[in-house]
Amino acid sequence: MDQDRVAKAFVDHYYQTFDSNRAALGRLYQDGSMLTFEGAKIQGAAAIVAKLTSLPLQQCAHAISTIDCQPSGPAGGILVFVSGSLQLGGEQHSIKFSQMFHLMPTLQGSFYVLNDIFRLNYA
Amino acid sequence: MDQDRVAKAFVDHYYQTFDSNRAALGRLYQDGSMLTFEGAKIQGAAAIVAKLTSLPLQQCAHAISTIDCQPSGPAGGILVFVSGSLQLGGEQHSIKFSQMFHLMPTLQGSFYVLNDIFRLNYA
Repeated sequence: MDQDRVAKAFVDHYYQTFDSNRAALGRLYQDGSMLTFEGAKIQGAAAIVAKLTSLPLQQCAHAISTIDCQPSGPAGGILVFVSGSLQLGGEQHSIKFSQMFHLMPTLQGSFYVLNDIFRLNYA
Repeated sequence: MDQDRVAKAFVDHYYQTFDSNRAALGRLYQDGSMLTFEGAKIQGAAAIVAKLTSLPLQQCAHAISTIDCQPSGPAGGILVFVSGSLQLGGEQHSIKFSQMFHLMPTLQGSFYVLNDIFRLNYA
């Protein structure tokens, strides 16, 4: 398995889905998943998607600057570290962010997000 | 074990050591450890400390803005996500950075760094 390719494909899919149909992000998480969003910890796919869909972002577009990945250990996980910027609908300027994902293999040969930590990079 | 306390203690120790005696950071890594520094992947404690000590930073001081942590799975690991700024000796301005660590328990009851990804946040 080419982890760089998995990481790139995941990142493309994640942010395209976030920007077009945020509710569909729930499929990427499981009950044991955890999101830390600007310091708030949320556990489980249902609560995570509720948080993501409740964010006060009507329209947004993510632009990715860097993607780094590493194997996370013998269980076959992949750590993905993303930096980029987020442009909100109707605003000219964008906000930089950093986000990390810990992807774990599923029994079906795909990956789900076990860990997700998001931070805006305030200027 | 209070993971938040472990994460905070690790972060304090890591950056104090980085800013005062960078060569001593080698003790925090093992042969299976990996560092991705601004996109360059380096494997193993010896190569990682060689990279860190070769950085063209004579004097530097890290200031930490945020620390987030999550358990990384059943093996007892901790994911630590840090944002902060780096001030270089003789310069007034500082550079923002984001860094993530995957800490794994050692047989001696401590933790080592299995994964380390560092990125500067260019303005």
